[in-house]
Amino acid sequence: MYYLEDIHIGERSEIGRHTFTADEIKAFATQYDPQSFHMDEAAAARSHFGALCASGWHTAAVCMRFLVDYRKKVVAELRAQGKPVATWGPSPGFRDLKWLKPVYVGDTITYATEALETRRSQSRPGWGLVFSRNTGTNQHGELVYSFIGAVFVESRRT
Amino acid sequence: MYYLEDIHIGERSEIGRHTFTADEIKAFATQYDPQSFHMDEAAAARSHFGALCASGWHTAAVCMRFLVDYRKKVVAELRAQGKPVATWGPSPGFRDLKWLKPVYVGDTITYATEALETRRSQSRPGWGLVFSRNTGTNQHGELVYSFIGAVFVESRRT
Repeated sequence: MYYLEDIHIGERSEIGRHTFTADEIKAFATQYDPQSFHMDEAAAARSHFGALCASGWHTAAVCMRFLVDYRKKVVAELRAQGKPVATWGPSPGFRDLKWLKPVYVGDTITYATEALETRRSQSRPGWGLVFSRNTGTNQHGELVYSFIGAVFVESRRT
Repeated sequence: MYYLEDIHIGERSEIGRHTFTADEIKAFATQYDPQSFHMDEAAAARSHFGALCASGWHTAAVCMRFLVDYRKKVVAELRAQGKPVATWGPSPGFRDLKWLKPVYVGDTITYATEALETRRSQSRPGWGLVFSRNTGTNQHGELVYSFIGAVFVESRRT
């Protein structure tokens, strides 16, 4: 990936688009979030959601998948250009995760990431942290998901 | 579940215990977090983690599963006692999620939840919000995972 010093603050990148099906919503919920409005159409219709919708952790996991795939794509591009590749990860955690709207069956969520800030790590010499806003937006242009992620990133300076 | 007014602030409940296997760590990572240190023992040994470890989103999803199962257990107990049952959920999101230590193959994580604060909702009359600290602790007594969750909870007062 990019070195700490090469990260463009404020640059927004679309990282992927996913349409949620009833089958995968139920499969994720059955294993990790077995609430009736994530597993059963009739129960969901009677709930405050009004229809079957994805577990928020499912929305989040799909976002993580796109973030990883995006990083792999950038690494491949840097390698193809003969450029050096910095190591990224792990993440110490994140803040302000928001599930703003339900993700219903058939909704197509477009995920994006935008670097907000970088700083040098106090605890790990030669490393920094990048803070990014990661979002999901549905086909109506409504923001459904957002969190501020943090990831350790290799620095050019030691 | 409990009504807003019946929630005991500061009471900590163990909600479940899970031992992470290599197979399930790889299965989750393959689908949602395909980074080499979550999928391949040899690559993980060369990484900063030093050994295969679970995706943080996997640690989080298992916690959600125990939270849901715990709520179902409480609902069953209230019903068995002939007590009224309040509706809980959805969650508007959470804050301060921290992955404090890696979760390695064979680690047994004990999850717990503790209510920190309740407040009446301004936007939804008859409802409140409960904020809880949800944690995971490994078999060495080390905190590996923590976040402050928020959930809408029915109030006795309208």
